[in-house]
Amino acid sequence: MTDPLTTLSETRVFGGRLKRVRHLSAAVDCEMTFAIFLPPQVEAGATVPVFYWLSGLTCTDENFTQKAGAFRVAAELGLAIVAPDTSPRGEGVPGDPDNSWDFGLGAGFYVDATEEPWARHYRMHDYVTRELPALIEANYPVTDRRSVAGHSMGGHGALVCALKHPGFYKAVSAFAPIVNPAAVPWGEKAFGSYLGPDRDRWLEWDACALITTATERLPILIDQGDRDGFLEAQLKPEALVAAAEAVGHPVTLRMQPGYDHSYFFISTFIEDHLRHHAAALLG
Amino acid sequence: MTDPLTTLSETRVFGGRLKRVRHLSAAVDCEMTFAIFLPPQVEAGATVPVFYWLSGLTCTDENFTQKAGAFRVAAELGLAIVAPDTSPRGEGVPGDPDNSWDFGLGAGFYVDATEEPWARHYRMHDYVTRELPALIEANYPVTDRRSVAGHSMGGHGALVCALKHPGFYKAVSAFAPIVNPAAVPWGEKAFGSYLGPDRDRWLEWDACALITTATERLPILIDQGDRDGFLEAQLKPEALVAAAEAVGHPVTLRMQPGYDHSYFFISTFIEDHLRHHAAALLG
Repeated sequence: MTDPLTTLSETRVFGGRLKRVRHLSAAVDCEMTFAIFLPPQVEAGATVPVFYWLSGLTCTDENFTQKAGAFRVAAELGLAIVAPDTSPRGEGVPGDPDNSWDFGLGAGFYVDATEEPWARHYRMHDYVTRELPALIEANYPVTDRRSVAGHSMGGHGALVCALKHPGFYKAVSAFAPIVNPAAVPWGEKAFGSYLGPDRDRWLEWDACALITTATERLPILIDQGDRDGFLEAQLKPEALVAAAEAVGHPVTLRMQPGYDHSYFFISTFIEDHLRHHAAALLG
Repeated sequence: MTDPLTTLSETRVFGGRLKRVRHLSAAVDCEMTFAIFLPPQVEAGATVPVFYWLSGLTCTDENFTQKAGAFRVAAELGLAIVAPDTSPRGEGVPGDPDNSWDFGLGAGFYVDATEEPWARHYRMHDYVTRELPALIEANYPVTDRRSVAGHSMGGHGALVCALKHPGFYKAVSAFAPIVNPAAVPWGEKAFGSYLGPDRDRWLEWDACALITTATERLPILIDQGDRDGFLEAQLKPEALVAAAEAVGHPVTLRMQPGYDHSYFFISTFIEDHLRHHAAALLG
């Protein structure tokens, strides 16, 4: 049913195993590489829930695994971690003709593009919410209990995944998410190309819009550094807090004094997020 | 007395501050960049001891700070961390004419070169044991209690620094160190160029040789993965254990099953090393 998986590398870390795996994705119609961490509990025969991590602009599957420092706590709690790439890649996949870092390759924005030339490959939402979990659950010793988190563009992705698929994820959280992409420059640039000029259609991929009609009130945990250079122009977490309050959706926004947009910020607070997810995944 | 320091970046992490700093080094006669982590205790007015980290081949000051996951425990314990670059760099600094990764730029081997064209700049031992600590202690809220650790080429560096400077460091440890560079290909290539063909002079920079005449018996902690691809040809930690046993020098070699040479290995065991160092630095 699933295409064969090619394990590119396998590395021992915190008593578990980190693998980089390549496969041919039907959803995005190209080869994709993801990272999966299997905690030590699986070597004792356990099946474990899965924490999906969606990275931000310019990242691959490797940024989180190398820089977040997440494996110590994931090994303690018995969580698998899956980190996909941030866009389709490879021969035949179009990138931004202007070669910018905030659109195209490394910047799939976790939407399903409808416009040419993006519609064939730029279907990252379908990939991360349907094809990838099915593949993970068919091939690794994991349960069907899942959660999703991410950073910046990937924080947007995590919120949209959870809000669009009630019941599919047990927990959701984000670091410095783009909560209102339909109303900020990064989102306007990406959505205008991937989804076309009709801004009403952008709202299907905007957490601030989706939260108003969500049928499941999954609590959202957000950490945001107050020295994040993208805070005012691109991130605007207070917009999500306002939208959530209007409908009674539980959101915890923690403004972290002095922190920026980097993985140093993520590494500082990832333990809190993993414990937040574990409480729901293992409860 | 010291040249001015230029702070390139300052990032909040685990309640402390990570800075990248550039300065003109007299020891290596070029501009150098180092990283310094100051734990939260210094913002409350404390002065703290310093853990020096020496990285391996191809690394800069950034590998350890981004990948080792050391700041959580350093913040808890109240340790500063200083991570220098692995060689002189920049305009006018000669690199390997063959452009290989295991000699020249990124591969200073923490020796003081005597041969041309290396002798002017490749004086990393003088830099890390004399100029850099003096600069750190003159410019940051730290004490004169220091320790040193490193990885691979930097593990060699840490051992040699501690063995050549009795009393200067309170603790020493290493991950997958090159313990006997005078007798393995990496060391033969580097020492033959930096130090010349007389192999007797190489022994001044070889931990297995230095340990036999050490006047201080500082306990050495070593972690080594048994799936490390460099273990048999380049690292040979059992050679140091044998040399240490012959003179009664305390060495703890922990062979870690399944681990390789990567920062995933380092991240798994760095907490143990930091606690080992803290016991001596804070005791």
